[in-house]
Amino acid sequence: MEDNDALDKIDAIRDLVNANLEAIIAEQSSIFGEVAQVSGQVVLAGGKRIRPIMVMLAYELAGGDDLDEIIPFAMSNEFIHTASLVHDDINDESLTRRGHDTIHAKYGQAKAIIAGDWLFSQGFGLGGQYEKEVVDVMAHYCSKLASAEFTQIDHILDLATSPEDYLDIVSGKTAGPFAAGCKGAGLIAKADKEACEKLFEFGMQIGIAFQLVDDLLDIRGDERMGKPRGSDIYEGKMTLPIIHALTILHGNQRVRFADILHNFNDSHFDELISLLNFGDSLNYTEILIQNHLERALQNLDFFPDCDAKQLLKHLVNMVQNRHK
Amino acid sequence: MEDNDALDKIDAIRDLVNANLEAIIAEQSSIFGEVAQVSGQVVLAGGKRIRPIMVMLAYELAGGDDLDEIIPFAMSNEFIHTASLVHDDINDESLTRRGHDTIHAKYGQAKAIIAGDWLFSQGFGLGGQYEKEVVDVMAHYCSKLASAEFTQIDHILDLATSPEDYLDIVSGKTAGPFAAGCKGAGLIAKADKEACEKLFEFGMQIGIAFQLVDDLLDIRGDERMGKPRGSDIYEGKMTLPIIHALTILHGNQRVRFADILHNFNDSHFDELISLLNFGDSLNYTEILIQNHLERALQNLDFFPDCDAKQLLKHLVNMVQNRHK
Repeated sequence: MEDNDALDKIDAIRDLVNANLEAIIAEQSSIFGEVAQVSGQVVLAGGKRIRPIMVMLAYELAGGDDLDEIIPFAMSNEFIHTASLVHDDINDESLTRRGHDTIHAKYGQAKAIIAGDWLFSQGFGLGGQYEKEVVDVMAHYCSKLASAEFTQIDHILDLATSPEDYLDIVSGKTAGPFAAGCKGAGLIAKADKEACEKLFEFGMQIGIAFQLVDDLLDIRGDERMGKPRGSDIYEGKMTLPIIHALTILHGNQRVRFADILHNFNDSHFDELISLLNFGDSLNYTEILIQNHLERALQNLDFFPDCDAKQLLKHLVNMVQNRHK
Repeated sequence: MEDNDALDKIDAIRDLVNANLEAIIAEQSSIFGEVAQVSGQVVLAGGKRIRPIMVMLAYELAGGDDLDEIIPFAMSNEFIHTASLVHDDINDESLTRRGHDTIHAKYGQAKAIIAGDWLFSQGFGLGGQYEKEVVDVMAHYCSKLASAEFTQIDHILDLATSPEDYLDIVSGKTAGPFAAGCKGAGLIAKADKEACEKLFEFGMQIGIAFQLVDDLLDIRGDERMGKPRGSDIYEGKMTLPIIHALTILHGNQRVRFADILHNFNDSHFDELISLLNFGDSLNYTEILIQNHLERALQNLDFFPDCDAKQLLKHLVNMVQNRHK
């Protein structure tokens, strides 16, 4: 498949996802009023829709051929993702998301907490209609998401955070939902156990790469993030480039690096990046991204060639090219 | 059935509920660590367990006879209820709940938001294993809970709040989950549509009465509430006695009453109660409680006499006697 063809096909799936999200928000707003409208604004503010697109492609790859069967699950993934963003933004005190004011910035914190709860309810309502095995996978990874967020809070500005801690947090917070979405799609398509595990691992690996790319974008700055450059550092989040540099740097450089992390402001950016480059930490992160994306691709080898496989490979490329 | 017999039987069901909650928290803590332990403390801090007890009795009343079939649903109701308490306490800035420090008071707000999300995930995981109709009822009432909370926030210190607004909020926030729990139990027991609607209405009516009793207890003060007397008034919540008094009082009394609500502190209690008594607003609330409890009982008439029916009647009495 040509790149342009793949892009068109992914755009078509995104359009379908967006149309379904719009229909749900319109319907639910007529039932639930303000909370649905306010929460709906975040859902409909855009976003790459990479989660629902991946769910739909994973379903097709696993042999599923009934769009109506998978759409509620794809929607469920996007609603739960949005719910976690709304609550994250409160905890991170972020004022913008997807280029718009966050709910708590616009409507106050109380409504933001409740809007997140409403989005969770919608997500679970949509996902709860599937068989127990699917619900178990989703509920487990939602619980794990919360567990990883606790761990992340415990590691705020903890300069002893190890790459293992990082992987533990990321595999719960970012990659777990990707993995659960892909595995759930396989289960819904009635794929066998091995196929479901390959889909799970595909989701996990692309999810880890996705987070590593986010780590880089936060440092390099990118308007597509829809939030200010360096947000992670201001929030004291231990991203992989930071963890790597803390391991590599010694003596005065290590002291200075730690000092910058503890008292970060925009004037430190050049020095921060020069220290990260001295430790080769940005390159190291890029190599890791490459490794995880290759592992993601290896899990696709299990499946026969088909359009969905080509499109999932294209998604892998899209993740890779986000930071370039 | 003698009252003491009924009490013993309800205690036995509560013990069963508590044993199941403890087992779930122990198991989940071994999987999810800190977030499960912190959230588990709130679940296990006590509480009357009226929701899961009612679910189990409604199931039995509807003809269900397999405890294993209903227990996850009863647990689901208690987890979702606890989740909403944790988030409510953040929004209400409450420092104690069930006689203990609230999560946000003890572990900070970020962890409290996430702990609530974890509890929701657990609740939906437990409830998501039932057929679509049951999940739809639960998800609908969770969404409605959020919608009612939005409305409640919009009516903070809104002295024009009408009894209809109040009923709208209460039927979403307190009574809706009772109604959905009872109806869900009927669906799980495979009761017919009429029986499920009677159970729904039973839950709705006892739930409204329950909230009205809470309104009275907040004004009269009761250590069983586990929170300071007058919390609702400090938070600007429009409870029914307040709404009634605002309608009845005139002239200087109305002005003074409004002034007290806007600038409430403990020294105003005697004057507040004397104004409420002048409007007969506490008695009026008691009559309403009585009416709703009678309507709850009428919905039980539909069902044949049995132990579960006797015990549900006993629950009605317990709600009635909470404020005496």
